[in-house]
Amino acid sequence: MDGQKPFTIGILTSGGDAPGMNACIRAVVRTGLANNARVIGVANGFEGLINGDFRVMGPRDVGGILQRGGTILQTRRSMLFKEARGQREAIRRMNEAGMDGLVVVGGDGSLHGAHALAQQGIKVVGVPASIDNDIWGTNMAIGVDTALNTIMEAVDKLRDTASSHSRAFLIETMGRGSGYLAVMAGIVCGAEIVLVPEVPVSVEEVADAVEDAYRRGKTHAIIIVAEGANIHTTDLARILDEMDVGFTTRVTILGHIQRGGRPTAFDRLLAARLGTRATTALLEGQTDVMVGLQGREIELLPLETVLTHPRTANMEYYDMARMLAR
Amino acid sequence: MDGQKPFTIGILTSGGDAPGMNACIRAVVRTGLANNARVIGVANGFEGLINGDFRVMGPRDVGGILQRGGTILQTRRSMLFKEARGQREAIRRMNEAGMDGLVVVGGDGSLHGAHALAQQGIKVVGVPASIDNDIWGTNMAIGVDTALNTIMEAVDKLRDTASSHSRAFLIETMGRGSGYLAVMAGIVCGAEIVLVPEVPVSVEEVADAVEDAYRRGKTHAIIIVAEGANIHTTDLARILDEMDVGFTTRVTILGHIQRGGRPTAFDRLLAARLGTRATTALLEGQTDVMVGLQGREIELLPLETVLTHPRTANMEYYDMARMLAR
Amino acid sequence: MDGQKPFTIGILTSGGDAPGMNACIRAVVRTGLANNARVIGVANGFEGLINGDFRVMGPRDVGGILQRGGTILQTRRSMLFKEARGQREAIRRMNEAGMDGLVVVGGDGSLHGAHALAQQGIKVVGVPASIDNDIWGTNMAIGVDTALNTIMEAVDKLRDTASSHSRAFLIETMGRGSGYLAVMAGIVCGAEIVLVPEVPVSVEEVADAVEDAYRRGKTHAIIIVAEGANIHTTDLARILDEMDVGFTTRVTILGHIQRGGRPTAFDRLLAARLGTRATTALLEGQTDVMVGLQGREIELLPLETVLTHPRTANMEYYDMARMLAR
Amino acid sequence: MDGQKPFTIGILTSGGDAPGMNACIRAVVRTGLANNARVIGVANGFEGLINGDFRVMGPRDVGGILQRGGTILQTRRSMLFKEARGQREAIRRMNEAGMDGLVVVGGDGSLHGAHALAQQGIKVVGVPASIDNDIWGTNMAIGVDTALNTIMEAVDKLRDTASSHSRAFLIETMGRGSGYLAVMAGIVCGAEIVLVPEVPVSVEEVADAVEDAYRRGKTHAIIIVAEGANIHTTDLARILDEMDVGFTTRVTILGHIQRGGRPTAFDRLLAARLGTRATTALLEGQTDVMVGLQGREIELLPLETVLTHPRTANMEYYDMARMLAR
Repeated sequence: MDGQKPFTIGILTSGGDAPGMNACIRAVVRTGLANNARVIGVANGFEGLINGDFRVMGPRDVGGILQRGGTILQTRRSMLFKEARGQREAIRRMNEAGMDGLVVVGGDGSLHGAHALAQQGIKVVGVPASIDNDIWGTNMAIGVDTALNTIMEAVDKLRDTASSHSRAFLIETMGRGSGYLAVMAGIVCGAEIVLVPEVPVSVEEVADAVEDAYRRGKTHAIIIVAEGANIHTTDLARILDEMDVGFTTRVTILGHIQRGGRPTAFDRLLAARLGTRATTALLEGQTDVMVGLQGREIELLPLETVLTHPRTANMEYYDMARMLAR
Repeated sequence: MDGQKPFTIGILTSGGDAPGMNACIRAVVRTGLANNARVIGVANGFEGLINGDFRVMGPRDVGGILQRGGTILQTRRSMLFKEARGQREAIRRMNEAGMDGLVVVGGDGSLHGAHALAQQGIKVVGVPASIDNDIWGTNMAIGVDTALNTIMEAVDKLRDTASSHSRAFLIETMGRGSGYLAVMAGIVCGAEIVLVPEVPVSVEEVADAVEDAYRRGKTHAIIIVAEGANIHTTDLARILDEMDVGFTTRVTILGHIQRGGRPTAFDRLLAARLGTRATTALLEGQTDVMVGLQGREIELLPLETVLTHPRTANMEYYDMARMLAR
Repeated sequence: MDGQKPFTIGILTSGGDAPGMNACIRAVVRTGLANNARVIGVANGFEGLINGDFRVMGPRDVGGILQRGGTILQTRRSMLFKEARGQREAIRRMNEAGMDGLVVVGGDGSLHGAHALAQQGIKVVGVPASIDNDIWGTNMAIGVDTALNTIMEAVDKLRDTASSHSRAFLIETMGRGSGYLAVMAGIVCGAEIVLVPEVPVSVEEVADAVEDAYRRGKTHAIIIVAEGANIHTTDLARILDEMDVGFTTRVTILGHIQRGGRPTAFDRLLAARLGTRATTALLEGQTDVMVGLQGREIELLPLETVLTHPRTANMEYYDMARMLAR
Repeated sequence: MDGQKPFTIGILTSGGDAPGMNACIRAVVRTGLANNARVIGVANGFEGLINGDFRVMGPRDVGGILQRGGTILQTRRSMLFKEARGQREAIRRMNEAGMDGLVVVGGDGSLHGAHALAQQGIKVVGVPASIDNDIWGTNMAIGVDTALNTIMEAVDKLRDTASSHSRAFLIETMGRGSGYLAVMAGIVCGAEIVLVPEVPVSVEEVADAVEDAYRRGKTHAIIIVAEGANIHTTDLARILDEMDVGFTTRVTILGHIQRGGRPTAFDRLLAARLGTRATTALLEGQTDVMVGLQGREIELLPLETVLTHPRTANMEYYDMARMLAR
């Protein structure tokens, strides 16, 4: 950054929204301004980058958004950006607007987009935001803690009614490729058994776990099923009812409420730290990296590394969930 | 009640559970004891009445339950009780246990059971508890206010994510025969349109309302669909997507979380008032009546009257919901 | 309203803020527009009326506010408006802006201001909003239900820690002149005893109630104290500790959180109904009246009547709170 | 553990209660039983250890407690246990009951007690639980995340009313010796300035921060004050009002609600992990250690080390709070 023209940072949110994205936008804007940079908000994700949906952000533009779910910049999935000409158009728009660097907040797909831009010479830093916690290189992504608390509160409600009727509840959580939310929900909700994409189970195994809970005198059973589990939730419910496992079964598909809600303290703090670090990283000249939480520290990792490591399931938690439900 | 043997009150909860049932049980037990009566809790609804699942309740047995959802007495639907021999068996059990009167907390089906017992000479007072608010003779049944707040909080979460993606959300609430919850949710959530069993609408009408919201510059649209509406929620979503109404659509079926959760202040207060009045009514010798909220007062109504009046939809609220969403 | 110039409605919020005020503003704006009126928002209460802090409100200006606490029009206490010249200035500003009528949302002081304007020929309709529920002529004012739920949730939290330490908790609620919130909180929180301005009690009476709870085997005791009770909360705690009532005592003063938070479903609905009716009342040519909830209906009452009737405590609830805590 | 007599584990909670203690008790009981150990619950902390308030815990005794705040084993501060004869008596009771090891869940004082017992040959493992997060050797203690969310939700409510009145709110949080909660609350609540025991500030500095917020056009200011800050909250409010900083000021002392409430997902998970590891550590023969969260892992640390390291403030977060509030 020379004395004449301030360093200009673009910021966009992309992919599925996650609670805490607004807290991250606020951190980027305020950190940028505190460092004499100029910050441009890009609306509608990569689509807005192509269309030039830009507006300069002042400190008051991010006032009152810390506690709001969703993203004030909106987000969209862009088909056009996956093509070379979409990316070329985006780069042209960025140059026109004098953007010196870009912060991309989003999940796996968004980070691929960030990497593609970085490969073409744009300075880009990625921030992981995805309620599924399926991004390698960060212990937690923005939105995970809020989503987990939302699931937990829903299950706390279902337990009231499950106990009153001696029922087994099958609760479907998000997680097409990752069982993280489901396994953690299993521990914090006291589930009998958890079904995740990473660990196929048989219907018999599930039936045994539920029947065992019945025999042990439990007044209800909770079964958490990730969207991507090897058995479909409603199929499972039907089969369990046919098998007679003691409890009658009911299904609840939590759906989109898992993406909403005010961010928790953890997500606001994580978003503040990641957004702040992403901004200083750009100002330091870093590019093609993601900021991630590693233990207690925020670290920079090459996007190349992040995108080529599959995140694996933590079987320790999977086993813990089962042991503690006994 | 003579000086020798205290008046003995039985209490049971029946049908679908509703938040505030525990607050009502507490009120019956404590009001009974304050009036030198004996209170017997009947587990598992009418099924428990037939099986003699009885336990004498002291004041500490209802400690710490005021804030809990569900019902500590559990509830069950009983096929056997619908038959004369089931009722005969129940009456025999009540006599064995020396029960002088019974409080039945539940919905329409439960009040029919209460009425059947009363017709056979048992002193019975009914307390309306049903999240659908489908019981004639009470402005509000126990559980309705909590369910409505639960729906509202879920929609508040969905709105975050709807706005971030420019989406129309179809949210299915409980209400097979009654649109009360859906209409009220429409007002308190700012829904574009509400679909209820009492008012058939065409797909075109819904599409117009959503497209109109899009044209007026809204960043999202909320459509509330009662379970018993004339168009099925997922069908509606598919058709709207085919018609292209500006927004893309998503569906969330709220399901059983609507029955759970800590009761709100309104439901705890209503349960306290209804439970207290039901108990004093029994002690006064009343029978075959329901306690209901009429304006600000708790009144007694003959069960016969309650069960023969269908509750009708309040179109004033239906129209208000539409006007205020503009 | 003639065909040329639309009827113009002003709307202001005044006095202490209450959750649901925004829902009411939204209802006034949207009902006005639906009836072809023009709506002007007045910022900062009567102070803004004097200063001409006016802006024309369109339907999108009240988008996304239904669920927000506080008031987007802000509120202030105005000394100047209490004087004749303040009121004269306000009337001049209203005439300049072409206001044909005014909706005033607020508590007792605000309704006095409304009445003063009406006496000088301005068409004014008042809407009761006051978390204390101290306004005669409406069963509930806007904000009461939310405040009561906020108190209840705080006490639910305190009970966890009270039980773990065998403590008596003294919880001070708002209510300088009215014990409504305290008494209702007593019922819904299961308080041992409630202290309110309307019913002086002696320290001995409180000590007896707490000691009695200890003897009956309770693991904690809850005492609700309205701000305006005859004994000061911290004095009471000190004396109880000196008297040795079994439990050790702790004090929590809930303070301003009672005014905040997202409005509950009840408050959103009440605000929608009152705001809608206030607007149609102005359009019908009504003035110097307040809209109030009477049983299930919204009624109009002369402000004169409202302001000259003191609201009295409902001793029935006071006694119920004590009986149910046993 | 030989084949004849199962290894017997005692578990107690001590000091101030913290949300998640119950989830920890549940984890210890279920992990113990899963490893064929016997688990004895000790009521009332070290006082109960001296008095022999013991009960054998089965798996159902910890059913339904995962989501409850406080501690079902209750907690108390024991003067007697600080003396040698108190400890001697406790050891005698433990031997009588055949306890082979003890899990102590609590804060700094409780861990000192645990260390004292270990020094006398009892096998003891400590689990850090303290909402202040003032224990060295664990990134987070049980209860911190819930307390932080409780503070945040209270401030979210206060912000509604602060904005409606253009006010500065001074909010006092717990933290006599540690500013952790206050600083983190500052970041997640968007506070203008935070006052903590570790960093003395002058009144002028606070006044500047608030006046600066006023000048920048903010509609409210939030000031978080830890209990142990160098200026007392109410003094500060009075002085700010005298100095005229643009906003009028109001004070809210959050008090004991910070200890209550249902534990968050983070606290339930942390409690599960720490409780499980504490139990397996005892079974492995470990003693005089604390289980702590280090980055992503649960580690064992000598209690001696834990108790002799003062935990220091993290100035990075303190500065971040200020920068992000601009």
